[in-house]
Amino acid sequence: MTAGLIAGITGLKAFAANGGRKPRVVIIGGGFAGLNAAKALRKSPVEITLIDRRNHHLFQPLLYQVATGSLAPSDIAVPIRELLKSQKNVKVLLDEAVSIDLAAKTVELKTRGSLGYDYLVLAAGASHSYFGKDEWAEFAPGMKTVEDALAIREKVLLAFERSEEAGTPEERRALKTFIIVGGGPTGVELAGGLMEVARESLAGEFRTSDPSEARVLLIEALPRILPMFPEELSQSARSQLEAMGVEVINNKMVTLIEEGVVHLGEETIKAGTIIWSAGVAANPIGRTLGVPVGRGGHVSITETLNLAENPEVFVIGDMSSLMQADGRPLPGIAPVAMQQGDWAGKNIARVVTGEAPLPFAYKNQGSMATIGKNKAIAQIGDRQFTGFSAWMMWNAVHVGKMAGFRNRIAVAYRWLTTYLTGRRPSALIEADDIH
Amino acid sequence: MTAGLIAGITGLKAFAANGGRKPRVVIIGGGFAGLNAAKALRKSPVEITLIDRRNHHLFQPLLYQVATGSLAPSDIAVPIRELLKSQKNVKVLLDEAVSIDLAAKTVELKTRGSLGYDYLVLAAGASHSYFGKDEWAEFAPGMKTVEDALAIREKVLLAFERSEEAGTPEERRALKTFIIVGGGPTGVELAGGLMEVARESLAGEFRTSDPSEARVLLIEALPRILPMFPEELSQSARSQLEAMGVEVINNKMVTLIEEGVVHLGEETIKAGTIIWSAGVAANPIGRTLGVPVGRGGHVSITETLNLAENPEVFVIGDMSSLMQADGRPLPGIAPVAMQQGDWAGKNIARVVTGEAPLPFAYKNQGSMATIGKNKAIAQIGDRQFTGFSAWMMWNAVHVGKMAGFRNRIAVAYRWLTTYLTGRRPSALIEADDIH
Repeated sequence: MTAGLIAGITGLKAFAANGGRKPRVVIIGGGFAGLNAAKALRKSPVEITLIDRRNHHLFQPLLYQVATGSLAPSDIAVPIRELLKSQKNVKVLLDEAVSIDLAAKTVELKTRGSLGYDYLVLAAGASHSYFGKDEWAEFAPGMKTVEDALAIREKVLLAFERSEEAGTPEERRALKTFIIVGGGPTGVELAGGLMEVARESLAGEFRTSDPSEARVLLIEALPRILPMFPEELSQSARSQLEAMGVEVINNKMVTLIEEGVVHLGEETIKAGTIIWSAGVAANPIGRTLGVPVGRGGHVSITETLNLAENPEVFVIGDMSSLMQADGRPLPGIAPVAMQQGDWAGKNIARVVTGEAPLPFAYKNQGSMATIGKNKAIAQIGDRQFTGFSAWMMWNAVHVGKMAGFRNRIAVAYRWLTTYLTGRRPSALIEADDIH
Repeated sequence: MTAGLIAGITGLKAFAANGGRKPRVVIIGGGFAGLNAAKALRKSPVEITLIDRRNHHLFQPLLYQVATGSLAPSDIAVPIRELLKSQKNVKVLLDEAVSIDLAAKTVELKTRGSLGYDYLVLAAGASHSYFGKDEWAEFAPGMKTVEDALAIREKVLLAFERSEEAGTPEERRALKTFIIVGGGPTGVELAGGLMEVARESLAGEFRTSDPSEARVLLIEALPRILPMFPEELSQSARSQLEAMGVEVINNKMVTLIEEGVVHLGEETIKAGTIIWSAGVAANPIGRTLGVPVGRGGHVSITETLNLAENPEVFVIGDMSSLMQADGRPLPGIAPVAMQQGDWAGKNIARVVTGEAPLPFAYKNQGSMATIGKNKAIAQIGDRQFTGFSAWMMWNAVHVGKMAGFRNRIAVAYRWLTTYLTGRRPSALIEADDIH
């Protein structure tokens, strides 16, 4: 039989099994997980609806570079419609999924009522968690969306602008103090990036207040930053940050955040800019499923990536929690989301044609974190890398992973410019008013 | 005498003339006029303060390409500080000038009190004018700032998104109708750009509502669009727009704009998106001078670009009105602002060293307007160009004028991508909510 004939028969089977219509697959979320699920179904005889509340897919690992002015939003964000343009079995909807009814097999949308599904892929990602202290959000914003990153960029640039004309030396010092709460990869990237903005990009641009006097503090409650890496790499990351001038504070818990002040127990630090990168929680739509969720709202799934009682529902990426053989859950990182998206799509394709879904196994291709120019750490298999070699690997992997993004050349060009000149092409304050 | 010695003596003179301090030059506005004034004073023994309410200089002729998603804001905007970084006699302040006291020689700032000057360069530009119908602004936004352009981009993209799921054919038709009021260069550029977004960039991305069915209407109250060009070029522009599918309406006055509806006397047209490009008014700070201003708030100036009664005050660019020999005022376009900025700076440099200011003469290097891919009009001296040749000239001149902008390569790259693929790298909706 030819491949075409097989596909035809397969399609016919699925068609017949669903009372004369193609199975409806609803995917919630156009991030790495959702997008890869849609793509894995490109040859399946299904009708896919992909719902996202934004019109764009975001290459989130580079979002901190929007916050630090190296990249423009359009360098790392591409309209989802454009990415799926040629895949005719997908319809993209700009809307927000509010809740899910497992019994009725429907998704409730914010503006368009309810939508029925035969298969559901829940891939709505995660957002900041303030561990129950949501009132801190106002004073210490987090960074998950393009808009978050632009708000942080504006806050940082305005702090330097204000310090140029601040009344007292104390005010000036506070304005040029930046605190990042949380020493995970995003916190580390932001700390290094902000220090470079202060010492390189803005050098020589002010006449009264010297940006290079800026203090950047990275606070991590655990004994070391980047705790998901081996201890030696954590230590190296700390040394590399300190060599840049970042002050790393470990083993101290933030007990209170107010406007411009961070409390570490008795101690207080004044800072014009406070950024939160300490915790994430799964998208709250997971709680509407009515199934058990873990701390952080993560939905427990089977090894085939779906719900035990409702196998037609797949929950993937940052929304779910899958235990590994070593008793630890898979981390909430881009490669896991991408691989799970692809796998969930393939499992749906199998089920639709009468085959059994297959268990997912994460292929760990290594992990890395960047710190600044020529500074990074990387773990590939048993090998560890630090400094320039790790940094070059990080660059190569991140430009490489943007494959399919026409913006790759633009990103590489911008990086080269920033590398050579220290300038940040996107250091703009776009807002309408001097706040 | 060596040049250095002359400069030294000159500086000393200026120093002595001002009771032991260098003359203070305050420049209000970091657009083409203000920026060029500052640069022309780079070798003068003066202390310059340049004030702008935004942190960036904007290459305004390309702003419509941000609205239509071809360019990112950072492609055409550069921090003013960065542009003037190496010019040590300039201090840049992010603030808003609210009023001017000619007698006291002070500028009142929004956040930092008053600032004294010996010479003032008023170059605060223009904004939209609704000819007294300010209530129309809500329904028909204009485009002067990066933020305006992003708001229009979002409005346009959301209209297509909503049309994908609109309830009735009538709703869908209205959502895909775009009205541009005002047939000047910006109106023409937007009309052409929107038609290309609909027919090329978004083609094939929607499953229910076909973007290529969009209607783009350009309404101009005068008998022809681009009335500042010779009649044959206006006619050509109209033909080129119509060939793209734009409907050009002349000789009809907009009598009322409401939410989603434009009234042309008895006739009404429903449109999901209405954009205003019909009128500009000088920045209202000109009215605080207490000198006569024309219709549109333009300040009348002498041929040396300053006020007759207060020769230490220069008013340039879109804020002023300078009659030419033919009895017509100079147009409010970028080349005029650039040349006047340069001239005002040079005149201050002359006055500071005891020389008389010189009369300004505009060097008309030609004018051009772009319409779409391979479509434009141009007038260089007595020669007229249309279509591809005019379009190539427009491209060359606009990339060329960005000289000093490191973003030139980025812009050229993005244009090439859009030209070859029809795609718009910046077609993003960044806002946080589905409105």
